[in-house]
Amino acid sequence: MKFHPFFFTLLFSVVLTAQEHSHKSTGAIIFPDIPGYTTLKTDLHQHTVFSDGNVWPTIRVMEALRDNLDVISLTEHLEYQPHLKDIPHPDRNRSFELALQEAKNHDLIIVHGSEITRSAPIGHSNAIFISDANELLEEDAEDSFATAKKQGAFVFWNHPAWYPQNPNGNPNLSNFQKDRIKNGELHGIEVINTGDYAAESFALALENNLTIMGTSDVHDLIDWDYTEKGHSRPITLVFAKERSEAALKEALFAGRTVAVFNSLMVGKEEHLTPLLKACITVEEATYIDNTSILKVTLKNVSSTDLLFENQMPYTFYSSSPVFTVPAGGTKIIQIKTLEKLDAIELKLKALEAYVAPKKHPIIQWPIIVDND
Amino acid sequence: MKFHPFFFTLLFSVVLTAQEHSHKSTGAIIFPDIPGYTTLKTDLHQHTVFSDGNVWPTIRVMEALRDNLDVISLTEHLEYQPHLKDIPHPDRNRSFELALQEAKNHDLIIVHGSEITRSAPIGHSNAIFISDANELLEEDAEDSFATAKKQGAFVFWNHPAWYPQNPNGNPNLSNFQKDRIKNGELHGIEVINTGDYAAESFALALENNLTIMGTSDVHDLIDWDYTEKGHSRPITLVFAKERSEAALKEALFAGRTVAVFNSLMVGKEEHLTPLLKACITVEEATYIDNTSILKVTLKNVSSTDLLFENQMPYTFYSSSPVFTVPAGGTKIIQIKTLEKLDAIELKLKALEAYVAPKKHPIIQWPIIVDND
Amino acid sequence: MKFHPFFFTLLFSVVLTAQEHSHKSTGAIIFPDIPGYTTLKTDLHQHTVFSDGNVWPTIRVMEALRDNLDVISLTEHLEYQPHLKDIPHPDRNRSFELALQEAKNHDLIIVHGSEITRSAPIGHSNAIFISDANELLEEDAEDSFATAKKQGAFVFWNHPAWYPQNPNGNPNLSNFQKDRIKNGELHGIEVINTGDYAAESFALALENNLTIMGTSDVHDLIDWDYTEKGHSRPITLVFAKERSEAALKEALFAGRTVAVFNSLMVGKEEHLTPLLKACITVEEATYIDNTSILKVTLKNVSSTDLLFENQMPYTFYSSSPVFTVPAGGTKIIQIKTLEKLDAIELKLKALEAYVAPKKHPIIQWPIIVDND
Amino acid sequence: MKFHPFFFTLLFSVVLTAQEHSHKSTGAIIFPDIPGYTTLKTDLHQHTVFSDGNVWPTIRVMEALRDNLDVISLTEHLEYQPHLKDIPHPDRNRSFELALQEAKNHDLIIVHGSEITRSAPIGHSNAIFISDANELLEEDAEDSFATAKKQGAFVFWNHPAWYPQNPNGNPNLSNFQKDRIKNGELHGIEVINTGDYAAESFALALENNLTIMGTSDVHDLIDWDYTEKGHSRPITLVFAKERSEAALKEALFAGRTVAVFNSLMVGKEEHLTPLLKACITVEEATYIDNTSILKVTLKNVSSTDLLFENQMPYTFYSSSPVFTVPAGGTKIIQIKTLEKLDAIELKLKALEAYVAPKKHPIIQWPIIVDND
Repeated sequence: MKFHPFFFTLLFSVVLTAQEHSHKSTGAIIFPDIPGYTTLKTDLHQHTVFSDGNVWPTIRVMEALRDNLDVISLTEHLEYQPHLKDIPHPDRNRSFELALQEAKNHDLIIVHGSEITRSAPIGHSNAIFISDANELLEEDAEDSFATAKKQGAFVFWNHPAWYPQNPNGNPNLSNFQKDRIKNGELHGIEVINTGDYAAESFALALENNLTIMGTSDVHDLIDWDYTEKGHSRPITLVFAKERSEAALKEALFAGRTVAVFNSLMVGKEEHLTPLLKACITVEEATYIDNTSILKVTLKNVSSTDLLFENQMPYTFYSSSPVFTVPAGGTKIIQIKTLEKLDAIELKLKALEAYVAPKKHPIIQWPIIVDND
Repeated sequence: MKFHPFFFTLLFSVVLTAQEHSHKSTGAIIFPDIPGYTTLKTDLHQHTVFSDGNVWPTIRVMEALRDNLDVISLTEHLEYQPHLKDIPHPDRNRSFELALQEAKNHDLIIVHGSEITRSAPIGHSNAIFISDANELLEEDAEDSFATAKKQGAFVFWNHPAWYPQNPNGNPNLSNFQKDRIKNGELHGIEVINTGDYAAESFALALENNLTIMGTSDVHDLIDWDYTEKGHSRPITLVFAKERSEAALKEALFAGRTVAVFNSLMVGKEEHLTPLLKACITVEEATYIDNTSILKVTLKNVSSTDLLFENQMPYTFYSSSPVFTVPAGGTKIIQIKTLEKLDAIELKLKALEAYVAPKKHPIIQWPIIVDND
Repeated sequence: MKFHPFFFTLLFSVVLTAQEHSHKSTGAIIFPDIPGYTTLKTDLHQHTVFSDGNVWPTIRVMEALRDNLDVISLTEHLEYQPHLKDIPHPDRNRSFELALQEAKNHDLIIVHGSEITRSAPIGHSNAIFISDANELLEEDAEDSFATAKKQGAFVFWNHPAWYPQNPNGNPNLSNFQKDRIKNGELHGIEVINTGDYAAESFALALENNLTIMGTSDVHDLIDWDYTEKGHSRPITLVFAKERSEAALKEALFAGRTVAVFNSLMVGKEEHLTPLLKACITVEEATYIDNTSILKVTLKNVSSTDLLFENQMPYTFYSSSPVFTVPAGGTKIIQIKTLEKLDAIELKLKALEAYVAPKKHPIIQWPIIVDND
Repeated sequence: MKFHPFFFTLLFSVVLTAQEHSHKSTGAIIFPDIPGYTTLKTDLHQHTVFSDGNVWPTIRVMEALRDNLDVISLTEHLEYQPHLKDIPHPDRNRSFELALQEAKNHDLIIVHGSEITRSAPIGHSNAIFISDANELLEEDAEDSFATAKKQGAFVFWNHPAWYPQNPNGNPNLSNFQKDRIKNGELHGIEVINTGDYAAESFALALENNLTIMGTSDVHDLIDWDYTEKGHSRPITLVFAKERSEAALKEALFAGRTVAVFNSLMVGKEEHLTPLLKACITVEEATYIDNTSILKVTLKNVSSTDLLFENQMPYTFYSSSPVFTVPAGGTKIIQIKTLEKLDAIELKLKALEAYVAPKKHPIIQWPIIVDND
């Protein structure tokens, strides 16, 4: 059987289209590495039946594999145990062990963690890279944090803006947090939890040099809470020296992260700028025949749509100065350079990325013109 | 930049999915060749502004290329010319010439045709492979048919069941058609026109050995009349000795056709059976470990869904005895052969295909079991 | 602000389209009542963390509500308890209690059940409407069945064709089952389990007057195992005198069921025929102007596509004799009645329904022609 | 037959979803009126077989109705007539007449227009509201413009940045255009033609007080050139005192327009600001229980997605400061007002709208808090 050549053209275009949209339809989260670092996709705040979640730890592993994550942590509340009657485990490490076992044939890092749970102003905090969760179960929160520190844990403050603990949604550091920071017992802060981004938490992170975190805090199913609604779960991208638990830990203590929820990206300029730069590759740059209009094909290798605004001294021939490069797809822009150039600096503002509560990063890509 | 291996698995599955659905989403019509013949996808009844259609002939060429057709004919009404005031062409061959010119850089055969248009009982008929349409414009329909014969035309009766000419929708041969058949001036009959299939027209074709035809009879746009509604335009598959106009003509006179509209396929058993057999390939056939259950993967290489019912002496382990192999996709069936066999004859009834007004073909495929 | 009237036409058509496809996209399963009975949609074979499933019972309740079910049963294996180390419950009723509590504010019936689990030839069986699961946990399967009977349970044989227990996939009643039937301790049989339909199990049901069952046997998530693949979970439709647990039990003992998986429907003729008849309503029946062609609009009020073949003495004007009425949608057929009639009997064979392993039901609907 | 109440909930949510997406899927273009004016959706630059287009004028009327337009003009090239051999019409008004006839039973205004076609620097210009196209067919372009003025025409310069006439894509007024403006013979300028937006053309419009235009300039099919690619055709929104040809003409001469292509909106601040304000309605505004977080539901009544950035002194609780209100859909934002207020001014920057080449409008909506 032979197919008409036209068929292959059609097929090819369809396959390309699928590729362009593949990330979203599968839910797989994809981000490129940046110079010097491997980009680890992590969700370090999750629950199972071993605290107030509703699934067995195996489901969390399967969800993470479906989402193409590199790292997860099951951070059961130490103190809040609504299923205790049915799961009367004396060992708070059990959820971690079950996830570890499920993940052993997969390329997924399971980090040992727990949630230290108090009412305001102490609130909730996750301690990860712990060695024994049981030891953290103390009467006084101060003792829990001290023990976590002894175990070498990285600790971050969860959802500081959460309105059940904070009726105006506007977080401030209490003396408790100030002391923990001073003692080297609190290292990070969630700026995105569930779908909620708090600009004030971001400001606190920058002022206090806390590591910027984004997490799903999932209790039911990732599909029901995120995918089905057209969302990707919130994650923390961690820029590690290699793909290992040790490198992840080093990077978190060093504060090399970007928090991501759908197209919203929040991080320090030194991390967000190289990330966005790596997300876009320049596929082709040629002048339209007999013109000084440079046609440039941009490819977005990440799984999130990226929205930009032109910041060059030149205008575009066709598209709007504000444009999206779709997740996994391409966008052609045509730049009126007024004369034919050999090279040019593409300069765009990333409109859904923040390097400070009201500041977008400006990204630059060198473009070498293809001359035949 | 490196991607996690899991990404490729995901991507691959998405690309495969796209491939499975590609035919439909693009509108490309695909059917395999059958032993001894090339399968030509034809739409031999269409109109443009040169009779009562609303597009220039170039649009018909572009539509055919989008639909992956091999052959079209623009069969303008010789006698019904509502745009004559604006297009006062003295030459009835003009539509053909314009299509020919547009198609010259594409792999599409344009057949020269015209529609001889009368009221009932003569009705409408298409003469194709004509040399000069002007000569067919005669007062008496008999003269038009005689001239068509002189030019070597293949002539078919259009929409015999069309209710504006036939209020009960039940066609019969009038003396006019009987005489034309006797004189060798009428060779085919539409059993599908627009979306309308007439079982009685099919019966007439079989009784009078007329070539079975299916056509779109499009006047506006293929997109608006078919694609947008989820349909593929009606076509005639012609089984020709090679891909050429001469071979097409020989095959039409020899009656080697199947009319197709979406999943409905109508033809003589000798053509429909090999066509359906070629549409399905057996991709894999292995016994499930330690069982006598044979797992068989069927692939549908055509662009239409195919509906089958099991006719074997064995039952299936999982799927219903009635099942669809999706266009361009695969379906796994599990056959309980009761003991392990080396070979087996797959035997299925094609529920949306007709070899007579109430008779479905039964198709057989030899399956050799893969033994490791 | 005013909208152009055309907008409303467009909007209306879109809303209608959504309605036509709504069932599938939401996963809601919908079937009409039949004369004399309420149709209950049930899934009576499911697992949670309390045996070898991976979710808390609350998730099963939420899944059932999403799927629009009326009844579920969480039938934990009494004997197979892989999570026993973590959930060392002495009480085998716990899963039921938790589901009951979650469902209390919803219109969902939770039936108390357990799975009695043995190797072949005894195999697996579900006992539902039990009063205390703990009492069923006996060394000898005979004792478990006897206790179930004492508790008034309805008991059905699970997946008799399951190849891990039956390498040729071809079930037969062992002496164990024969004795249980004789003793009034076995009342039903799964003909569909997971996606697997066994024609032989259906034959056994008919020969031994066992109630015909279809179940999901879900262990992970309904979304992952069914919805995501384009499937609806297998269910048993039960025709009960009212919507209550007592009426459900009476109906199951009386054998008034149809097993459904996607479009496959399996049941006795006396239940399947009225069900299919109720699934299709005739919306409109008028003659096309000046013709004897009767245009009939059929509406499918169920959530499954229904495939029919014409069995009338009349042919259709347009569509194929084989056609689908889409789930929640409509299909127009045009019947050539040859003369204008006041009433007509529509007669269709249901090609994906079985009233015996190789027998499709033929359904009749009286049509009164709308005369202006 | 009765449906479970849950079914209606599901159905309702699906219908709402359909409504949210209805505009795009149908292609219907929808924009609200603004205070004092009716918003007319117009495409005043199109071609048919009567110049270098490929469809009969009737198709353009049908396309406009599908797109929900209020006004079209078929602006055939007076001088470029590639189909002249086949359509040797002596009357350049013919295309208009045929469209008028087709539109007579529909609520669509057909404006009589023609394209005056010269090489650079004169270029192409459309004259609309003419009385006789034949009179405009003059040797000297100056004479064509003078005649157009005599007929009372509104004239606009087409695609000034078009690179075949302007190799650096950077338009400037030539003496020809300067003279025409001085003489009151040139009144508008396309800032968007096909998919091409030229910031420089927009600057020229503002500097010279020319009416801002956007047009499709379609030659083949709107479906192929726009809809199929996920685009809406470029249009000019005209703010007229009523829905009539006379009011349209008055508004065009008065310069009350906004050019739109997909989500890009270009116009003077005095028109764009009320348009965007009318596109968003505030559906609900209530404080979340026991908090000072105000939950506001925004509804986008237009057929284009609208992208905004927060400009208030308050931050959001959940969503990103940059967010989209989808076409025909809603978006909930949660504003941290720090104390409970009775009213608040919502203040957003419209990121895909331009009131000058680099300036986005800031829109304000008064919000009255719903107090129970």
